[in-house]
Amino acid sequence: MDSSQFRQAAHAAIDQIVDYYDNIRDRRVLSDVEPGYLRQLLPQGIPETGEKWEDIQKDIEAKIMPGMTHWQSPNFLAFFPSNSSFPGILGDMYSAAFSCAAFNWQCSPAVTELETIVLDNVAKLINLPEEYHSTSEGGGVIHGTASEAIVTVIVAARDRYIARSKERWAEEGLSEDEIEDKVCTLRGRMVALGSDQAHSSTKKGAIIAGVRFQTIETKIGDYALNGELVKQKIEDLESKGLVPFYITVTLGTTPTCATDDFASISATLSTYHTTHPTTPKIWAHIDAAYAGAALVLPEYSHIPSIFPTFADSFDFNMHKWLLTNFDCSCLYVKRRRDLIDALSITPAYLRNEYSDRGLVTDYRDWQIPLGRRFRSLKAWFVTRTFGVEGLRAHVRNGIAGGEAFTQLLEADKERYELVSKPAFALNVFRVNPPPKLAKEVENDKKEFERRCNEVTRKVGDRVNKEGKIFITQTVLGKGEEAITAIRVVGGAPAVQVQDLRNAFAIITEVVDRVWEEEVREHEAGAREQVELQAV
Amino acid sequence: MDSSQFRQAAHAAIDQIVDYYDNIRDRRVLSDVEPGYLRQLLPQGIPETGEKWEDIQKDIEAKIMPGMTHWQSPNFLAFFPSNSSFPGILGDMYSAAFSCAAFNWQCSPAVTELETIVLDNVAKLINLPEEYHSTSEGGGVIHGTASEAIVTVIVAARDRYIARSKERWAEEGLSEDEIEDKVCTLRGRMVALGSDQAHSSTKKGAIIAGVRFQTIETKIGDYALNGELVKQKIEDLESKGLVPFYITVTLGTTPTCATDDFASISATLSTYHTTHPTTPKIWAHIDAAYAGAALVLPEYSHIPSIFPTFADSFDFNMHKWLLTNFDCSCLYVKRRRDLIDALSITPAYLRNEYSDRGLVTDYRDWQIPLGRRFRSLKAWFVTRTFGVEGLRAHVRNGIAGGEAFTQLLEADKERYELVSKPAFALNVFRVNPPPKLAKEVENDKKEFERRCNEVTRKVGDRVNKEGKIFITQTVLGKGEEAITAIRVVGGAPAVQVQDLRNAFAIITEVVDRVWEEEVREHEAGAREQVELQAV
Repeated sequence: MDSSQFRQAAHAAIDQIVDYYDNIRDRRVLSDVEPGYLRQLLPQGIPETGEKWEDIQKDIEAKIMPGMTHWQSPNFLAFFPSNSSFPGILGDMYSAAFSCAAFNWQCSPAVTELETIVLDNVAKLINLPEEYHSTSEGGGVIHGTASEAIVTVIVAARDRYIARSKERWAEEGLSEDEIEDKVCTLRGRMVALGSDQAHSSTKKGAIIAGVRFQTIETKIGDYALNGELVKQKIEDLESKGLVPFYITVTLGTTPTCATDDFASISATLSTYHTTHPTTPKIWAHIDAAYAGAALVLPEYSHIPSIFPTFADSFDFNMHKWLLTNFDCSCLYVKRRRDLIDALSITPAYLRNEYSDRGLVTDYRDWQIPLGRRFRSLKAWFVTRTFGVEGLRAHVRNGIAGGEAFTQLLEADKERYELVSKPAFALNVFRVNPPPKLAKEVENDKKEFERRCNEVTRKVGDRVNKEGKIFITQTVLGKGEEAITAIRVVGGAPAVQVQDLRNAFAIITEVVDRVWEEEVREHEAGAREQVELQAV
Repeated sequence: MDSSQFRQAAHAAIDQIVDYYDNIRDRRVLSDVEPGYLRQLLPQGIPETGEKWEDIQKDIEAKIMPGMTHWQSPNFLAFFPSNSSFPGILGDMYSAAFSCAAFNWQCSPAVTELETIVLDNVAKLINLPEEYHSTSEGGGVIHGTASEAIVTVIVAARDRYIARSKERWAEEGLSEDEIEDKVCTLRGRMVALGSDQAHSSTKKGAIIAGVRFQTIETKIGDYALNGELVKQKIEDLESKGLVPFYITVTLGTTPTCATDDFASISATLSTYHTTHPTTPKIWAHIDAAYAGAALVLPEYSHIPSIFPTFADSFDFNMHKWLLTNFDCSCLYVKRRRDLIDALSITPAYLRNEYSDRGLVTDYRDWQIPLGRRFRSLKAWFVTRTFGVEGLRAHVRNGIAGGEAFTQLLEADKERYELVSKPAFALNVFRVNPPPKLAKEVENDKKEFERRCNEVTRKVGDRVNKEGKIFITQTVLGKGEEAITAIRVVGGAPAVQVQDLRNAFAIITEVVDRVWEEEVREHEAGAREQVELQAV
């Protein structure tokens, strides 16, 4: 493919992409292929001689599209959104064209410098305090995902905790061998913490870093961590000789978009460190992967002011709800030294005059991989194209859709019950059993709950199977108290308030059918029992 | 930006990209901006209202380009290449357009299934034995970088070693508490191994996984690991109570493209496990990040047949030398269960019918991050567009360039000395001191070496400062024996044999100037001494 063939191919690709976006509403949002569908459609192996772009391009519609779930569809209301935008796509085009493994400043100074500038701009946009800007001792870096950010800060937290413990032991006059023994014991006792509502990536991060993970249970209905719960857990760990060194605190949990109580958690950690003056600091990380985008709005912009009192790091994904194509996770730390101390290894062939003089940021020391893509380009294009106003309008549109959906749920108490406070465009609710059956068990709470869960699960499964919209189910609490719930969240640029209203109508129509079936099955069951008794 | 504005903007972007590739030769390959250049060029903050694409696009040439080092330039002969190709760019365009965090099969079945198919095809292309294909107990997965692949396998190796140790201790009748104590001690003693020529990512991977790292020193001039060196290191570790559990073995090291001696390493590991029947298996990982691409050629295709005798995993980057835009690192494992056992965490909201039934691959359990991009698209477009023939021709072109450069070096023994055997298109050499000065110190080896290093460093620095070509320096060995050398490697699709010949002429011209200066400085120094003595 020479450059003129590429020009033609790329123009054809752009036309196909435009058509995809213009008509995405008509596609079934959730792919309904069976596992293994694609191997049946494709020839085995790589062809001996090259193929023409026209033939390859045809396969996108014919073979790839049936297996796509369309995250940019106005009918995609599952998980959290993974925003795309036209300037975001342009950013990825240039990034691909410049293809380089920009692992240090010299590899392409623009890749490093634009990232610092864009992340400082975004920090201002979301009102993140000065401490997290590159102009202080902190700064931001683009990671691929919030889960990579979490592994990275767990490792930095672990190594900072160990380093400070070693310093203390050395001051106390312990020998090197004694210190090594104590480090070995310490490693085996270090615990990373997260609430039962925190994203599973904290647990995975702990596994990768080779430390323990423990869950702090939140209250059903509230689902937020607070200072008292953290205090109890720390005391419990200490009584068992375990060592808390890291905690994930969440702004907008995955199951219900709950926000942990930053003020009381900050107070607890502060008291803990005052009463334990020789204990190294527990690293607190704020995971705002999805809801962090809401901080662009003035009505949320007071939230971050408390962060510096307790949080060593903060992360949110521009690729979720801020119009920047996946992947673009923005990790901010209060003290960049913590990352570099843990992760820097500079071999000879990566040294150069500027890194040696400490004049430049080498982001490879702020992350797990060595190589880096030019991801700040897309964030730059997006923020410039939309401007502060456009970014705010986008997030407000998501919130308006969520609020419209909440109103519909609340106006239909016969069918629906919200199981958590709606937040950041997310509604989490369950479906009641048909009124007739509900009445039968109104005095048997356990049976009522069981039926709620069953009906909710049936409705959730049926809605996705029919594929007009795509929604997610979640389970809150555990054991006998477990609640099955449906999560509905918009947030893709294509999702308008009317789409949420349509979604409500679609779900309600399914509820009615499921209710009918439930009643019919129940009556058939009752009849059968009568007949059996009659035999 | 609506879809018709995007169509226009994207067509303009494509035209700019085509122009960039068509005229890349005219650009200074290595950016010569000073640190901080970009902040001076850009306004502070995000604009209140959005900007037009025309204005944003202008800034790419005006503000970004000066800070780019052009990895696709025919004058880029540094590090290893980071190949780009037109079908690769098309792949990234579609991937951006489909923007989704495809963390499980259902999120977009095509993303998972195409990846499995493409990686099986690539495995066949490079003659990787059946054991590493998805049709056996193994399989391939696309990671971002070879360094992420290494962290991932170190974690899997660590957890497999610990799990098997626990099983053994349970069989021996130890109590749970005793086992926990022993695991704690074991963790503190586990050592990941790599040669002094292995990529630094093994050391970084060990840091992240919280285990020790030790280096095995190779012989100067050879730079390859072999079974005897591995045996000695294992015995040394055992005598100190340390526990080797992982080793990186390299096909094409970063400094010199040396290849470790697979046969003798395999024999050593096999003997070790025969004589230590209760010791869990040491995980061997083959890092072929760059040179793995050469396995597409029939003349190298015998190499992988020995892999299954000792290697648990193998990784190579299609984004280095196989025409696929960064990032696309192909990790293959012999037993996918090892990755899943270490990394799987499946929370309720990620469960679905197909994953529950085990019918589908959930690649999130094969990697650190949760979310995944649609990276197999570009690998698919690239392999189909080039075909087996085209891919081979590309690698052959790289090798031909390297061989031409070797011939030029060997024909000029006055100026140059190869410090390692040229391999996989890489030449590593040093520059001799000017003949006049060399003669003076011909009996003082230490001084001769010092002068070689100094002249080589000067030439390397000067060549990059002048910026006609971009090359890398490396340091081999350490202390007094350290050799400074220049690395020259092509591999970008634009680099032709003639470009390597031009590079040789450019370097030689710089050598002559540096030589002249050296002689002049030396004579000036000598004159000054004479004058001083005369005073």
